[in-house]
Amino acid sequence: MLPGRGRCIVTSGVVDAQAIDLRAVQRRVDAVLEEFLAGKARSAAGRGHPPEVVQAVRDFLAAGGKRIRALLCVVGWHAAGESGDATSAVRVAASLELFVAFALIHDDIMDDSASRRGRPAVHRVMRARLGEGERAERLGAGGALLVGNVALMWAQELLHTTPIEPGRERLVHGLYDAMLEEVMYGQYLDVMGTGRGADDVEAALRIIRYKTATATIERPLQLGAAVAGSGEGVMDAFTRLGLPLGEAFQLRDDLLDVFGSPDGACAPGLSDLREGKRTVLLALGLQRADLGQRERLGHLVGRAGLEEREAAEVREILEVTGAREETERMITSRYEQVLRVLDGAGLPSAADRALRGLAVRATQYTA
Amino acid sequence: MLPGRGRCIVTSGVVDAQAIDLRAVQRRVDAVLEEFLAGKARSAAGRGHPPEVVQAVRDFLAAGGKRIRALLCVVGWHAAGESGDATSAVRVAASLELFVAFALIHDDIMDDSASRRGRPAVHRVMRARLGEGERAERLGAGGALLVGNVALMWAQELLHTTPIEPGRERLVHGLYDAMLEEVMYGQYLDVMGTGRGADDVEAALRIIRYKTATATIERPLQLGAAVAGSGEGVMDAFTRLGLPLGEAFQLRDDLLDVFGSPDGACAPGLSDLREGKRTVLLALGLQRADLGQRERLGHLVGRAGLEEREAAEVREILEVTGAREETERMITSRYEQVLRVLDGAGLPSAADRALRGLAVRATQYTA
Repeated sequence: MLPGRGRCIVTSGVVDAQAIDLRAVQRRVDAVLEEFLAGKARSAAGRGHPPEVVQAVRDFLAAGGKRIRALLCVVGWHAAGESGDATSAVRVAASLELFVAFALIHDDIMDDSASRRGRPAVHRVMRARLGEGERAERLGAGGALLVGNVALMWAQELLHTTPIEPGRERLVHGLYDAMLEEVMYGQYLDVMGTGRGADDVEAALRIIRYKTATATIERPLQLGAAVAGSGEGVMDAFTRLGLPLGEAFQLRDDLLDVFGSPDGACAPGLSDLREGKRTVLLALGLQRADLGQRERLGHLVGRAGLEEREAAEVREILEVTGAREETERMITSRYEQVLRVLDGAGLPSAADRALRGLAVRATQYTA
Repeated sequence: MLPGRGRCIVTSGVVDAQAIDLRAVQRRVDAVLEEFLAGKARSAAGRGHPPEVVQAVRDFLAAGGKRIRALLCVVGWHAAGESGDATSAVRVAASLELFVAFALIHDDIMDDSASRRGRPAVHRVMRARLGEGERAERLGAGGALLVGNVALMWAQELLHTTPIEPGRERLVHGLYDAMLEEVMYGQYLDVMGTGRGADDVEAALRIIRYKTATATIERPLQLGAAVAGSGEGVMDAFTRLGLPLGEAFQLRDDLLDVFGSPDGACAPGLSDLREGKRTVLLALGLQRADLGQRERLGHLVGRAGLEEREAAEVREILEVTGAREETERMITSRYEQVLRVLDGAGLPSAADRALRGLAVRATQYTA
């Protein structure tokens, strides 16, 4: 349920004009992760712990992912005017990616998703180790739950062993703790919030606010800025950026899951439709549907075994009711708002350009 | 799968002779937890977060539990020769109890246990909120998973906001991180370790070593000592205590689950038998069983719907094979080893007496 279909909206080329080399940042983040996990593998071997736990986390990270939170963290550090040694910001950024691994591994258990980033989900890998049947299924989910927990613990360990200037430590750790909590509350509402109607656009946006706007955009940016000892001005700009950019990012993700990308490079994932996720796109469709269409949507959305021809019917309804188009409009207006916030924020130009590039990357179809 | 049937082996009266007032310690730990969670409830209300998450954690803690790790942490602090302001040790101790809450909430999901500490398990409470059926079951488990995650995050927050003298911080946090990892690895072996035979006593003891000896005994003691800035002598004594005390504690727990307490105050829980947990008790029974008994044990142990008359048959086999008696002997020899370690450790007398009291409390049937 966390946004993470990522690779489909990553673009190459966009970053070329930027003074912050985001590819180099990503390489540094990945190097920190690899070094940290190599240390964990060594200590596991030394203590006779099973090697599969570290391996599962490594495989998960190696399978891809946009590293969008990590990049935002380092960009946030630059935005606060820093340009010296980025080591601490990169370590905090790497910690965010371990946190994402934790959240997605647990997410996939809760949704019983078959795959993630083009590979079998961790609980499916664990299940396969145990053989067939109901017992293997239950224990496999348990094994993945533990792997996810370990990823969270390591995220915290990496954060708390990062040298941060004493006066800034409290804010960095406080922002991190706030982010963890916000994501959990957002997920909780998502999982347990069966009370609200599926056609409630506002409720669907509220979930996005919790899960994406703050956790994916605002907090990572603020964490980087806090490492750099930034003042309130930059923090406020990031809060104002978080909402429109996070919403646009999630709305694009929702569209991708149902329609794929127009050039066919990204096939529809359909997991939202199969699990009956209450997206803004679906809420708009239900609001605009006539009785017959509404009845069809109610019948089809949430079917675990939804087939392609049924998905095509859902797509057709979301097209003819204008729900898809309205979602595109919402993305555009949010993207424009991001640009207005950036226009007024007066960030250092390298960070400003990087953020504009990331905004394109997170919200547009680009190839 | 973590030890936690606790109330059955708590004794009143044992602590009377001790200079460390363990009941007062427990009250202080509970007060820290209550204050911390009251703050979380206020901030949740202020931000429009659902109140049930904090409530679930509060209810879990309010339902009881021996707070054995918390007590050991504060005793460890005393053992290092401290007698002044225990505030930091008490906060670290409280953090341990949030960690235990996390571990047990997740444990109950993995085992699908119906109850914990005499109340419905958290995932069952969540499920009940959602109604009936397979969907409610899946989402209820998801809600509890998230509540557990939040408890872990709060455990870490409480730890990391505890003022610790700068020179001691690294050791305290390092021990805590090591403990988290050890518990997860132990659980992972427990969940995924289907390769080993159910009659493998050594393998069953290895699981105890991970899950109980270090996490329940050694690390909590060492954490308290580390807060007090203790040297290696005390740390070593705690390592030597951890193994026999942890093993004795777990073996008693295993006996209680199958046989209850002799005075009937604690009824058998039977959860180990129903989930087919590979305990030392069972391994001993299988080793000593004849072909027919072995076949009956294989048939009965692991039946989710095991009935009382079937449990009685298992008990009978564990009696006549001498497995129960051998387990009692193992507890006694380990208890005696604990006393020998204490005899040689030369700890301050208040801490020494408290540890002897806790050793009784954790390993004996006492009423």
